Amino acid sequence: MPQTQGLTTLGVDVGGTKILAAVVDSAGQVLAQTRRQTPAKQIGTHQIEAEILSCIAELRAIHNPIAVGIGAAGFVNAEGSQVIFAPHLAWRNQPVQQDISRHIKLPVVLDNDANTAIWAEHKWGAARGHSTVLGVNLGTGIGGGIIIDHKLFRGAHGLAGEFGHMQLVPQGRLCECGQAGCWEQYASGSALVRRAQGIGIGDEAVASRVRSWQLGAGGGLTGPQITAAAKAGDSLAVQLFNELGHWLGVGLAQLCAAFDPGVLVIGGGVSAAGSLLLDPAQNSFAQHLSGRGYRTLAKLRSAELGNFAGVLGAARLAQELCD
Amino acid sequence: MPQTQGLTTLGVDVGGTKILAAVVDSAGQVLAQTRRQTPAKQIGTHQIEAEILSCIAELRAIHNPIAVGIGAAGFVNAEGSQVIFAPHLAWRNQPVQQDISRHIKLPVVLDNDANTAIWAEHKWGAARGHSTVLGVNLGTGIGGGIIIDHKLFRGAHGLAGEFGHMQLVPQGRLCECGQAGCWEQYASGSALVRRAQGIGIGDEAVASRVRSWQLGAGGGLTGPQITAAAKAGDSLAVQLFNELGHWLGVGLAQLCAAFDPGVLVIGGGVSAAGSLLLDPAQNSFAQHLSGRGYRTLAKLRSAELGNFAGVLGAARLAQELCD
Repeated sequence: MPQTQGLTTLGVDVGGTKILAAVVDSAGQVLAQTRRQTPAKQIGTHQIEAEILSCIAELRAIHNPIAVGIGAAGFVNAEGSQVIFAPHLAWRNQPVQQDISRHIKLPVVLDNDANTAIWAEHKWGAARGHSTVLGVNLGTGIGGGIIIDHKLFRGAHGLAGEFGHMQLVPQGRLCECGQAGCWEQYASGSALVRRAQGIGIGDEAVASRVRSWQLGAGGGLTGPQITAAAKAGDSLAVQLFNELGHWLGVGLAQLCAAFDPGVLVIGGGVSAAGSLLLDPAQNSFAQHLSGRGYRTLAKLRSAELGNFAGVLGAARLAQELCD
Repeated sequence: MPQTQGLTTLGVDVGGTKILAAVVDSAGQVLAQTRRQTPAKQIGTHQIEAEILSCIAELRAIHNPIAVGIGAAGFVNAEGSQVIFAPHLAWRNQPVQQDISRHIKLPVVLDNDANTAIWAEHKWGAARGHSTVLGVNLGTGIGGGIIIDHKLFRGAHGLAGEFGHMQLVPQGRLCECGQAGCWEQYASGSALVRRAQGIGIGDEAVASRVRSWQLGAGGGLTGPQITAAAKAGDSLAVQLFNELGHWLGVGLAQLCAAFDPGVLVIGGGVSAAGSLLLDPAQNSFAQHLSGRGYRTLAKLRSAELGNFAGVLGAARLAQELCD
């Protein structure tokens, strides 16, 4: 095991499905980690904070981080003090930074989870060295992070990068955010699972095949199970990734028309499907991009830091707080 | 007449319909101006450059500008040397900067026309003092300009801000760029005119009413004629602006989800309709914005510099070239 480098901080990634936390050193090494299920939206706001505090307490029992960074799947205000809105969490105008720092007596920095993820990819992963980057994180929803001139761009009110809530289809599928036709209803991990569940409703042979992907596992169908089926060559699962890739590419083309990034980094759980997702996405992206024959196409890259990107970036922000 | 301030430069705005040129001083005063019709797309590339040179020669006969700025309705590369693609012009990989400077023996700076327009609004108009700004120019198409941290943001390859070619409607109306469903097919000046022409096709009473807006003018129906009819209270013309405003707001909500600007500046010929356009756009914008009740809505502002914004911004870029 390499030696711990510099001071350590603690990163927390609060997603719509799970909370990940880790102690990280200044070289981006994970020294210890833990996780919790994200409390359901209806349970209320304090339970999420209780789970975060529980993660932090567990890790502080064995390490001595000097600050905490939190990446949250929601709209974080410009001051980095509140999660003002979160389609997949119970938080509304929740003063998360203060709530947590009051309990742990350490400096706390709060940011959007897709911001922290792309910030980690820029330091240690797929976006290293690139000045103009868009991060697109496919999980419960679609999160987005923007790097301009090697810095995180947060917009005028902290809310830039809510790519998942760009409307791709007028009067399209209803979204947890209250709108309709949002991109994340077509190209996120949840969209993949819902689509898999839907295709079997009117066809028992298809439903049975989809059930077979669960391999006897309890609970509902998951994205990783669909990914495994596709990797094993199930043509139906592959077709689901083709559809997902189509919609991913449609949205990426819009982002590219608007921002013209040098590289697009595709992260989040679904990106583990690799070329099963990225190949159809690349085709659809090029096909839908205005003026495609006259321009340099932005590179589409898989995130390199996997599930830990959000945690690592949050820990990095905490380190920068102390620099 | 106020005294000329500082050195003068010449700005040229090459749009899909007309070419505007003016001599401008460092305070943004227009000292002289001229205009030409933009040569039709099929006439070829050199005729556009001939018209630009003709404008420049006319103005240099009476003034002595030290540099020329050109804003063009097309995709301009990062080096500012070529218009690589232009849905509404014949140019493809056209080395406009060199072509013009070779003839006039003056320094030439080339940029996208919506970039130059928002750059002028930032210096002298509706975006003054704002750090994070999106400019949306409704003309033949929809051009876009982005200001981040008080600087023009051009993207990794110079092509940022092509908002008009974001797909708003899957498999929607065909666009001059070769794609389908592009925003500018729903919310530009051309879209307004086409819609007005369309509504009368199956209804002679409506067609006759639309013809009455031309007030005996020759040639085809124009945007300003529709604007005049709406301002005079014609309910059908007002309805056309409501539709246009609806689609404008839908697109602005996508831009806001992605960028979170402090202010959105709506310019171009159609913006002369003022509240007839901006009121329905504001409603639609708020209605389609994710998390609208929990965030500060970006301000929607009319551009202040009218048709001359593009020329003024191009002249400003030429001044900065010489600073």
